[in-house]
Amino acid sequence: MRAVIYTRPGEVALAEVPIPSLIESTDAIVKVSLAGICGTDLHVVGGEFPGIEPGMVVGHEFVGEIVEVGREVRGVRRGDKVMSSDFAACGHCGWCDRGSHWHCIERAFFGTGTSFGPALAGAQAEFVRVPHADTTLGRLPQGCSEEAALLMGDNLATGWIAVERARVEPGDDVVVIGGGAVGQLAALSAQAVGAGVVVVVEPNATRRAFALAHGSLDAHPDDAASLVSRVTGGSGASVVLEAVGGNGPMDLAMKLASPVGRIVSVGTHLAERWAFPLARAFRDELTVGFAIGDAIRLRQRLLRLVAGGALDPTVVIDARGKLSDVPDLYKQLRTQQHLKAVVSLHR
Amino acid sequence: MRAVIYTRPGEVALAEVPIPSLIESTDAIVKVSLAGICGTDLHVVGGEFPGIEPGMVVGHEFVGEIVEVGREVRGVRRGDKVMSSDFAACGHCGWCDRGSHWHCIERAFFGTGTSFGPALAGAQAEFVRVPHADTTLGRLPQGCSEEAALLMGDNLATGWIAVERARVEPGDDVVVIGGGAVGQLAALSAQAVGAGVVVVVEPNATRRAFALAHGSLDAHPDDAASLVSRVTGGSGASVVLEAVGGNGPMDLAMKLASPVGRIVSVGTHLAERWAFPLARAFRDELTVGFAIGDAIRLRQRLLRLVAGGALDPTVVIDARGKLSDVPDLYKQLRTQQHLKAVVSLHR
Amino acid sequence: MRAVIYTRPGEVALAEVPIPSLIESTDAIVKVSLAGICGTDLHVVGGEFPGIEPGMVVGHEFVGEIVEVGREVRGVRRGDKVMSSDFAACGHCGWCDRGSHWHCIERAFFGTGTSFGPALAGAQAEFVRVPHADTTLGRLPQGCSEEAALLMGDNLATGWIAVERARVEPGDDVVVIGGGAVGQLAALSAQAVGAGVVVVVEPNATRRAFALAHGSLDAHPDDAASLVSRVTGGSGASVVLEAVGGNGPMDLAMKLASPVGRIVSVGTHLAERWAFPLARAFRDELTVGFAIGDAIRLRQRLLRLVAGGALDPTVVIDARGKLSDVPDLYKQLRTQQHLKAVVSLHR
Amino acid sequence: MRAVIYTRPGEVALAEVPIPSLIESTDAIVKVSLAGICGTDLHVVGGEFPGIEPGMVVGHEFVGEIVEVGREVRGVRRGDKVMSSDFAACGHCGWCDRGSHWHCIERAFFGTGTSFGPALAGAQAEFVRVPHADTTLGRLPQGCSEEAALLMGDNLATGWIAVERARVEPGDDVVVIGGGAVGQLAALSAQAVGAGVVVVVEPNATRRAFALAHGSLDAHPDDAASLVSRVTGGSGASVVLEAVGGNGPMDLAMKLASPVGRIVSVGTHLAERWAFPLARAFRDELTVGFAIGDAIRLRQRLLRLVAGGALDPTVVIDARGKLSDVPDLYKQLRTQQHLKAVVSLHR
Repeated sequence: MRAVIYTRPGEVALAEVPIPSLIESTDAIVKVSLAGICGTDLHVVGGEFPGIEPGMVVGHEFVGEIVEVGREVRGVRRGDKVMSSDFAACGHCGWCDRGSHWHCIERAFFGTGTSFGPALAGAQAEFVRVPHADTTLGRLPQGCSEEAALLMGDNLATGWIAVERARVEPGDDVVVIGGGAVGQLAALSAQAVGAGVVVVVEPNATRRAFALAHGSLDAHPDDAASLVSRVTGGSGASVVLEAVGGNGPMDLAMKLASPVGRIVSVGTHLAERWAFPLARAFRDELTVGFAIGDAIRLRQRLLRLVAGGALDPTVVIDARGKLSDVPDLYKQLRTQQHLKAVVSLHR
Repeated sequence: MRAVIYTRPGEVALAEVPIPSLIESTDAIVKVSLAGICGTDLHVVGGEFPGIEPGMVVGHEFVGEIVEVGREVRGVRRGDKVMSSDFAACGHCGWCDRGSHWHCIERAFFGTGTSFGPALAGAQAEFVRVPHADTTLGRLPQGCSEEAALLMGDNLATGWIAVERARVEPGDDVVVIGGGAVGQLAALSAQAVGAGVVVVVEPNATRRAFALAHGSLDAHPDDAASLVSRVTGGSGASVVLEAVGGNGPMDLAMKLASPVGRIVSVGTHLAERWAFPLARAFRDELTVGFAIGDAIRLRQRLLRLVAGGALDPTVVIDARGKLSDVPDLYKQLRTQQHLKAVVSLHR
Repeated sequence: MRAVIYTRPGEVALAEVPIPSLIESTDAIVKVSLAGICGTDLHVVGGEFPGIEPGMVVGHEFVGEIVEVGREVRGVRRGDKVMSSDFAACGHCGWCDRGSHWHCIERAFFGTGTSFGPALAGAQAEFVRVPHADTTLGRLPQGCSEEAALLMGDNLATGWIAVERARVEPGDDVVVIGGGAVGQLAALSAQAVGAGVVVVVEPNATRRAFALAHGSLDAHPDDAASLVSRVTGGSGASVVLEAVGGNGPMDLAMKLASPVGRIVSVGTHLAERWAFPLARAFRDELTVGFAIGDAIRLRQRLLRLVAGGALDPTVVIDARGKLSDVPDLYKQLRTQQHLKAVVSLHR
Repeated sequence: MRAVIYTRPGEVALAEVPIPSLIESTDAIVKVSLAGICGTDLHVVGGEFPGIEPGMVVGHEFVGEIVEVGREVRGVRRGDKVMSSDFAACGHCGWCDRGSHWHCIERAFFGTGTSFGPALAGAQAEFVRVPHADTTLGRLPQGCSEEAALLMGDNLATGWIAVERARVEPGDDVVVIGGGAVGQLAALSAQAVGAGVVVVVEPNATRRAFALAHGSLDAHPDDAASLVSRVTGGSGASVVLEAVGGNGPMDLAMKLASPVGRIVSVGTHLAERWAFPLARAFRDELTVGFAIGDAIRLRQRLLRLVAGGALDPTVVIDARGKLSDVPDLYKQLRTQQHLKAVVSLHR
């Protein structure tokens, strides 16, 4: 089959690889119909994550149709159109029981090397093997578009978890650090639950314009403090959602938060340490949390939100292609020419 | 001054009455700039509430400007543009401390007779005396329209409390019984916090069309069960908000609720008894609550929601007049010719 | 095997019946080591529930050891010591997914006829067949006594759900209507989460004394209003938990509730109707909910509460016997000679 | 009057100073009957806080009787026995309205120099001036001991807020770092709301023994990791409450937390920076919050908890003296000879 494989730091290529087959009796094989490229993929292909080897199929966002299931799979069957979490989880361990699938003792993350569990071939391919199919996959209900379903598997789950973990209350003023796909979806999620003013902080002018066109205010990082001060009457934002990752964005998030503010970060953090402003956090009673989207636990909620019209995640998709476009799309995404790219396997 | 007074069951008239003056040192006198007519007023003027006497000034929705304050008033001052709760509360008793101003031991409800506390002259007038001005009134912030502020004093607070008390979660399917101003605002509030499908159940076709035009589905009461069943996959609605009052609407609300459903009623109930479906409520683990809007506790939250654009309550206003139009507007409202009427005192 | 069977209204007998065998591949067979007699059993044997036929094995509270499992059972295995929910649920349907196992489309209730699903043989027997063993059963952790585990399967889950559904907050004054095993466990659960004053209302003096000896105040129903008024400064109780069932206890619950009070009923309700005090519930903003214990969802929470010492449910057990004692114990329980009876199958 | 004054770093002395008089019309003068010495006082007297000058009266924990009130004070009156928050707040600003009195724009902290607002004379004295008496003071209800009331003004409010901010759920395993008065009260608060296992981590053997005698497990910091791992089945604690302050205790708190764990710190932090374990916090989805007790907002809740018997804070008091003993008590507290010391002004 055709698939996008990692070749060397910074590079992917279209290649012919063997079609995956069932390994465990709880696996399914999915024929991919739509695959996405995520900001995380840029880190993976950039060589920043351990355990990514030349020849590995990359990608972790997809929807498709089940073509084969192991004999212990009961919740989905051959022929089902399905959406998928970006990582697989067993559904039976203590963490899965508590709804924290990310901490599943058998977690495996599609196409990202060995950073977050054993290596698992990715989904920018014609077929993908899905472990623990009963849990990892969900049936795509009638009326839900493939594009919306793909976003629910990662970017929307990530943007949404920021809002949920921060316990955004109706009327809360919310700042979002970062106007990439996740940041924009966090802003839309905050709006969907009745946030007051939402400000997206982002250096890229095109992304700022997108935020403004979709119901948020926007600010360049250099101007963020003064805008946030102005719209919050000087107190700062009661909620700051960080969607970039790294020390600088965290510092900015802290700076923009009001007393008793809640900061939740969903950006990817590779740095071991961050110089935390301890005395100030104490004095101002700040709360700082980190969250990772859980597309398994959130699946029904996100489906209902989208079905009810509270949220249309597909507005972030601004590049559509076919599988052979993926290598070029990586390059374009690296220079932020697009907000979000998906490729159809039907083409 | 000119004021609208109750004359006999079913009738009000424009009359000349004395301008109110301060009685307690915690009072304020407000020059009314905008007054509203509420569905409750129709009950009051219909003679359904005890203690309404000919000559009493009616009305409980208003915004205006403070022209005089008692010497113990500290939070607002002469010249302030203010919004008001539809009832006055002391701000100091145990119930006010807990944020339940409706249960204040000194509660007085403007222009509604003695049903809900000692008689207090109403606000469909050029001036109104406001007890406990520090608590009952709030400053109207820049950028908030008088119409929005008027609605926050009663109808929006009532629609909102239904959503809040029902703990509507993002993605919840919500049914609203009744498409009057409160019902429509409950539907908009549910949408504002990320409800899934919202269905407004209402016999009046114009009001159903309004609901449909503002993001909800709509159903005639006779068709409600089948529509709700269809959109919820047969389970019923997880949340039902009742905004009419009386036994029939409560029966319908129960009928449309799913197992583990939450029904919250904000309609006015004058009947002492209701034949409650006990065995079914037990078997299905239903929760039935009653709530009364608290425009004092909710003021800051509603202001932020409206300022942030999550909600524009003024869409329900479809009749605007001047004080002398009020008697005619009562007649038109009784036959549901309007959804919501307000009168400007500037005209 | 020996089992307790229903013979005619009001009577059970010890009988020899066939040992159950696996029917579905998701079943398990459990060798019962401890079985309980529940207040619900008195209703069942009294003939108040439909579908109970002579010869049926009764009882729904048990712990034991798995002696056989179907080939699709994965979470538990032969030889495991297990605790059980009093009803079986599939673990896979929409309701189970949302943690509402009571509403499972395949629910079956042990030993209670056909009121709550298809008939399923009971557990006052040497062996019992358990449908959906993966979900219905849980492994008994080291250090957890059989008696505690048995109570978690029904009475404690029921008492606890009342507290959880009422959202008892630290410092809330709580009234419990009914001093049977469930009522006493509701009172202990309320204390465990930091309730303020807890009052158990009960006509039986021995049960009142038990409540008093275990950290609650107690009142005869005739004296409840004055005691509750006194301890709450006249306002009534913010939370009332009803653990008897029927119209009278519901009326009393309403009477004892404060404004904005939350009433949760976990008593069994067989009456179709209840004359609900509508105008008063509206005026006082009451919330009335009904709840059914879910020993599946609550299992881990209850285990941790008991392991951590927050709660010892076994204090309610005051009668211990062997299987052949069950017919006599039913008679003694009917006259309230015991609070809670369990029988050991080892004897 | 006699009062305890700061003389030089590390030293206090009993001195004769002028009786305070009313300054603002919202002040009250309280005749102190019981004063406490807090761990924070050791920092203040140690010279670690800015703005403490020789001659200043120290201390911020007290109860007493009102002997004089300004003319705008309405909630309390001369002759009232009162409890006090350790800091004064206006009760009217936006922060007070939201229940965050610590962030009041007029906050003043008794006897702690200028670190947390304008200097305000302390309460280890015969009389103390209390700003914003309506908000800062609360009437001591019948049946509440002076010692319990004193602790509610600071140490209990601080221990409790840790539990509240961490949203301790029934059954949560909780670690408390630090076995001083605040840590012990945090542990007792966690028990009061139904925590599972509670472990107090503390180097001082006497304090560990106290924890063990009052329902918690105990561990020396060196042994904490292994004990916590053992009692939590290897996962770590879902909640860690830090009650010491500083980088070391924060590092230990992080180490003992489970995935998705919540760490709340109520220790005093003077260090500007802390090396935060960023990648790990992200990977494990940790939440780290800081909280400061708010004895104004929590007053009614704490009174109900203590009245209902859920919690007896006075068990931590192990040293009782008279005002002239205060200088010696400081020395003894510095070497941890006592857990908590209070002095009676009646003696």
